[in-house]
Amino acid sequence: MTLEPSHLALVPFVSVANMMKLVHHIGLERFLIELADEIEADFKRWPAFDKAPRVPSHSDVGVIELMPTSDGEMYGFKYVNGHPNNMKDGLQTVTGFGVLAEVDTGYPVLFSEMTVLTALRTAATSAVATRHLARPDSKTLAMIGNGAQSEFQCLALKAVCDIETVHLYDIDPAATEKCAQNLANSGLTIRRCATPEEAIEGADVITTATADKRMQTILTDNMIGNGVHINAIGGDCPGKTELHKDIVARSSMFVEYPEQTRIEGELQQMPLDHPFTELWQVITGQATGRRSESEITLFDGVGFAIEDFSALRYVRNAVADTTFFTNLDMIADPDDPRDLFGMVMRASGT
Amino acid sequence: MTLEPSHLALVPFVSVANMMKLVHHIGLERFLIELADEIEADFKRWPAFDKAPRVPSHSDVGVIELMPTSDGEMYGFKYVNGHPNNMKDGLQTVTGFGVLAEVDTGYPVLFSEMTVLTALRTAATSAVATRHLARPDSKTLAMIGNGAQSEFQCLALKAVCDIETVHLYDIDPAATEKCAQNLANSGLTIRRCATPEEAIEGADVITTATADKRMQTILTDNMIGNGVHINAIGGDCPGKTELHKDIVARSSMFVEYPEQTRIEGELQQMPLDHPFTELWQVITGQATGRRSESEITLFDGVGFAIEDFSALRYVRNAVADTTFFTNLDMIADPDDPRDLFGMVMRASGT
Repeated sequence: MTLEPSHLALVPFVSVANMMKLVHHIGLERFLIELADEIEADFKRWPAFDKAPRVPSHSDVGVIELMPTSDGEMYGFKYVNGHPNNMKDGLQTVTGFGVLAEVDTGYPVLFSEMTVLTALRTAATSAVATRHLARPDSKTLAMIGNGAQSEFQCLALKAVCDIETVHLYDIDPAATEKCAQNLANSGLTIRRCATPEEAIEGADVITTATADKRMQTILTDNMIGNGVHINAIGGDCPGKTELHKDIVARSSMFVEYPEQTRIEGELQQMPLDHPFTELWQVITGQATGRRSESEITLFDGVGFAIEDFSALRYVRNAVADTTFFTNLDMIADPDDPRDLFGMVMRASGT
Repeated sequence: MTLEPSHLALVPFVSVANMMKLVHHIGLERFLIELADEIEADFKRWPAFDKAPRVPSHSDVGVIELMPTSDGEMYGFKYVNGHPNNMKDGLQTVTGFGVLAEVDTGYPVLFSEMTVLTALRTAATSAVATRHLARPDSKTLAMIGNGAQSEFQCLALKAVCDIETVHLYDIDPAATEKCAQNLANSGLTIRRCATPEEAIEGADVITTATADKRMQTILTDNMIGNGVHINAIGGDCPGKTELHKDIVARSSMFVEYPEQTRIEGELQQMPLDHPFTELWQVITGQATGRRSESEITLFDGVGFAIEDFSALRYVRNAVADTTFFTNLDMIADPDDPRDLFGMVMRASGT
C-alpha cells in the first residue's frame, strides 16, 4: 500500500514563480495580446455564461471576494482580496488565486496563483475596451495612479491598441518614478508628470487605477477634453469611486456586468436611470460603441468573473506542454469511490 | 535575483496524503471528538459569523458550490462538488478543498484538501446534533446508506455519543459489506440488515446518508418509532430529499441555517410555516431541544459553511507543529508591494 495518489487526485498548480516563468516564456506583450483575444472571445459568447455579482465579505479594512462563473462546460472561480492598507505593511493590496474545474465531474483541472494573473487580465480587459471604444488614432495614454497595476495597463495598451506615449501621474512621485523606470526599455515614450492636468493634456486615453479614495477629486470635469476614452478601473467596491460625478455625467458609459457595476463601479454614484451600454454588446455589434470623434467614452471596469475564467483557461492551455506547473495531491481518490474510509485507514501503514 | 518566495508568499497546504497522516497522528476517534467540540464552540457563537446560503452552480449532472463565512477575524471558504453519477466512473461524489484567510490582510493562512475533511466534519456535526437531541441512553444506530460517509458517521456517534451497536442498510448489499468490514475492528457491534425495517427496529438514532433520490421512499412513516433521533444528512440540494413527508411532519425539526435548509434540506418539501428550531439555539440553551422520551427529533443537516470554518481552523492548529503540510508559493510578494511588475520582470533572469 502506498500513499501515491492516482492521476485523478492530482491538480496542476501554477505557483507565482511558475506564472512569472510562463510570462517570460510567452513574452509579456504576446501574453497580453493573446489574453485580450481570449477575453474578447468570451465577451462574444456572453449569454452562454452563468453570471452573478461576486460574493463579498467586507470588513473595516478591506474585502475578500469569490468570483464564480461557468459556461456549462467549465467552471471557474477566483478568490481575491482588496486591502488598501496592506501596502504600508509591505503586503499586496490585491492578491488572488483561482480554480478551473470540469462541470460534468466537479473535479478541478487547474489551480493557479492569480495575483500576477489578475494584473494581466485587468490590463488585457482595459485593452479590449480601449480597442472597441477609443478613437482609432489614439497614441497617448495618461496613466493616473502608478501602483502595482500601472505598468501592465501601459503595456497592454501598447501591445493591443498601439499606444506610443504614456504620461504618468501619481500623488506619490516615488510611484511615478518606479513606473517610469520599469517602462524605460518598453519602447513606450514616458513622461513623468507633476500634476494631473499635465498628464491629461494631449491624452487620447486616460486610465485611472487608484487603490483608495484619495484620487477622487484629482480629476475634475474641466480637465477632461472631448473625444477621450477613459478606463476607470480602480473603483471596484461599494463606496469607492474614482471620477467626479460631472465627468461620469458627460461620458457615455460602458460596463461589464451591470448588476455588479451598479454596486461597485462609478455607476454607483449615478441615478438609477443613468444610461449605460454593456461592453459585450459593443463587441458583438449588437450595440453602438463610440458615436463621434468628440464623445467621451468611459469604461467603468470593476473586473468580472468571466475575465478570470478566460485567464484561467488561457493559462491551462499555455502550461499544458511546459514544466511551469506542479501536481498537487488535492483530491482524495480511493480505488472504490464509496470507500473513502478504507483509503484513510489503509494510509496508517505508511 | 532569485525566485525564492518570501515567507509572506507561502501558504501551508495540507494534501490528501498529509490529511490522512494527520488523522492517524491524532487518532480518528480523537479527531472526531475534538472536531465536534470545535464545531460546537462555533455554534455557541453563531451570531458572530457572516452567514449566507452557499453559492451554487448547478448543471444537469451535479453542482459545484462555494461556501464562505467569516467571524470578523478569520475568513474561510470551501469549494465542494456534488455529482451522484461520479461514482460509476470511479470518481468521488463529493470532493472539496478550502482556504482559511486573515480578514485584516486578506492573505490565506491555510489551503487544505477537504474531501476527507468534509467527511469528518459532516460526521462530527451529526454527532453534535445527536448529543443535544437524541435520548441520553441511545445505544443503537441505524445507518441507512452505506457509502463514503457511512463509516465516519458511525464512528463519530460512537466516539461522541457512546453508540455501541450499528445496523447497516443499503440498497446495494456490497456497500453494506464494505462498511461492515471497515468497522469490523472499531469496537462497534455491527449488524448487516437486508431490509430497512430490520435496520430501524430497535434503533435509538437513525442516520440517512444517501447520495441520490432512490432512497426517498425506502423509509416510510409507519417504520419510524417514537423517541428516535434522525440525522438526515444526504438531502443537500434542491429537489433532493431523503425522508417521506409524513415522517418529517411527525418530527420536531432542527436546522443549521434556515435560509439554506429551506432551499436544500428536507424542509424544502414542507409548507413555509412548518416549524423548526435552529440547532445553535439549542446548544446555547436559548431554545428547547428534545421535549419528551417519545418525541421524534430530526436534524435536517445540509452542511453549513461555519462547520467547514471550524474544521479548517482545527486543521490549521493541528498541523502547526507537525510536518503534515508543505508550503505553496501562492501569493506574489514583491519587495515593494507597488512593484509587482518589477518582480515579474526581474524573474526573467532565473
